Amino acid sequence: MAERENDGAAAKRPKTDAGELSSDSPVSDFKITRILRECAREKNIFIHGKVKDQDAVVILEKAPIRKDTLSELLKSSQLQLEMKNDVYSTYQLQAPAHLNEIKTTVICPATEKHVKKYLHQEVFLVEESGEDYRTVTLPYISSQSFSVQWVHNILEKKAEADRIVFEDPDPLTGFVLLPDFKWDKKQIQDLYLIAIVHRRDVKSLRDLTSEHLPLLTNLRSKGEDTIQRQYGVPPSKLRVYFHYQPSYHHLHVHFTSLEYNAPGCGVERAHLLSDVIQNLQADSSYYHNRSLAFPLRADDGLLLKFKEAGKL
Amino acid sequence: MAERENDGAAAKRPKTDAGELSSDSPVSDFKITRILRECAREKNIFIHGKVKDQDAVVILEKAPIRKDTLSELLKSSQLQLEMKNDVYSTYQLQAPAHLNEIKTTVICPATEKHVKKYLHQEVFLVEESGEDYRTVTLPYISSQSFSVQWVHNILEKKAEADRIVFEDPDPLTGFVLLPDFKWDKKQIQDLYLIAIVHRRDVKSLRDLTSEHLPLLTNLRSKGEDTIQRQYGVPPSKLRVYFHYQPSYHHLHVHFTSLEYNAPGCGVERAHLLSDVIQNLQADSSYYHNRSLAFPLRADDGLLLKFKEAGKL
Repeated sequence: MAERENDGAAAKRPKTDAGELSSDSPVSDFKITRILRECAREKNIFIHGKVKDQDAVVILEKAPIRKDTLSELLKSSQLQLEMKNDVYSTYQLQAPAHLNEIKTTVICPATEKHVKKYLHQEVFLVEESGEDYRTVTLPYISSQSFSVQWVHNILEKKAEADRIVFEDPDPLTGFVLLPDFKWDKKQIQDLYLIAIVHRRDVKSLRDLTSEHLPLLTNLRSKGEDTIQRQYGVPPSKLRVYFHYQPSYHHLHVHFTSLEYNAPGCGVERAHLLSDVIQNLQADSSYYHNRSLAFPLRADDGLLLKFKEAGKL
Repeated sequence: MAERENDGAAAKRPKTDAGELSSDSPVSDFKITRILRECAREKNIFIHGKVKDQDAVVILEKAPIRKDTLSELLKSSQLQLEMKNDVYSTYQLQAPAHLNEIKTTVICPATEKHVKKYLHQEVFLVEESGEDYRTVTLPYISSQSFSVQWVHNILEKKAEADRIVFEDPDPLTGFVLLPDFKWDKKQIQDLYLIAIVHRRDVKSLRDLTSEHLPLLTNLRSKGEDTIQRQYGVPPSKLRVYFHYQPSYHHLHVHFTSLEYNAPGCGVERAHLLSDVIQNLQADSSYYHNRSLAFPLRADDGLLLKFKEAGKL
């Protein structure tokens, strides 16, 4: 959902004021322009609007139902009968607000790119050869000169330092592990962490060669160990993968609960770390040469480049 | 979610007392026995318990976010800042109860059939080496002697002949293409077809070598052409893949709409046909030798075999 992006916004001095009250929150004076996307199945909605005179995107997603507060929820809620038939009855349950929170993400100021990202769009599968990557994709990525300042803020502890679950500081094989925005850490069923490597010279899967095997194996073993130790989730319950294309071009790995159908874990975008390691062990230039299929939204500038190059 | 069952309970005269108050609702004195299933993405939970001395299943699912109450929701809610970094900030929003209801379904008395229906099975990721396949998986598959008679019936036109969308009768490179049972053919958003090969000597991905490349390339091109012609869906809108493990051991390929999050299209189970073709072109024994990861449910006999072999 609220996956972060390369973006052009100037990096402000980051602060982390968790727990602060909401008097001046950007949501209270948020003016809705339009709904960008919504999903009834996932209980989320993506809204484009204005905070004062600034463009903003507000994402609301209802929190998963927590086992640890379930008894309290059932006891302390108001019920209204809707339907009764034989052994079946349905109700509307009105719960105490603190047991029924809504995860809210605000992006402000939001760039056109943020807005586009969340606007529902047709999706097309592109098959990118190694040559296509070098002649179409890489020039496009470079021309965009996306900022990954927010990634550097994390690596330099200028932001989210309190969210870091584990760090291996080694400049070549090290990484930081932290919860993804999409995970509220309240239940492990939708566990979602991200490992961000300290190296800044690896944009994506495409840059990986056998040279990076020590980084990948270190990241896999220490990431899995940490998640088992901290959250009690063993490697056999984890899905560990890259995205290609990634949302931002600084190498990172997704750790999600196997039982959580996480957005972006589909075969058309995800690449299991265990497969990547084996492929590089067998052929150092595997990801340099292979055609990789990935989905692109109709409004993605890269899709236009592929069309211009007659590749679609 | 709360799809109803035929069950033995005598159908009482149904009454619908919508709006009735909840004083004597079965939920208030519901005693939780165990969680049957929960889905963090869909924000629902299935609970087995007792109402007085009767078995009951209670299903909670958060309501979708309503556009028509969105402004009121944003204005009248309390926010607590969680995190701020650059242009991104996240909050917990506490909404008025009447704007944030939870749909509640009660089945009481619940039969064993109801309980089983909603009971979730744990899933484990297995990493099967080529050796594991030959020593653990293959002997297990053979011992089960699952019947694929229904597949042969299709190939021989003894059943479902009217459902076949396309056939290439070639005994070595041919196949039949037909809609999957999950697809009602009423809209292309969830388009789902299956290609079943005429060859009967290929159980799964594991059996594929470069010898099968003519079959795979033929299946891909004619399958995609047919779907474009018949349903107007171009190859760039399709996800074309194998399952490993497959649900039946006669080689078949899944064609699903790229925009449909089809069950089993996750990276832990699906293998893109385009990747399989490339891997076999580079290494004829790729699928004989590689470790392949796949999920197994706790009640799957194969999982027991892997445990017995000390592989999990």
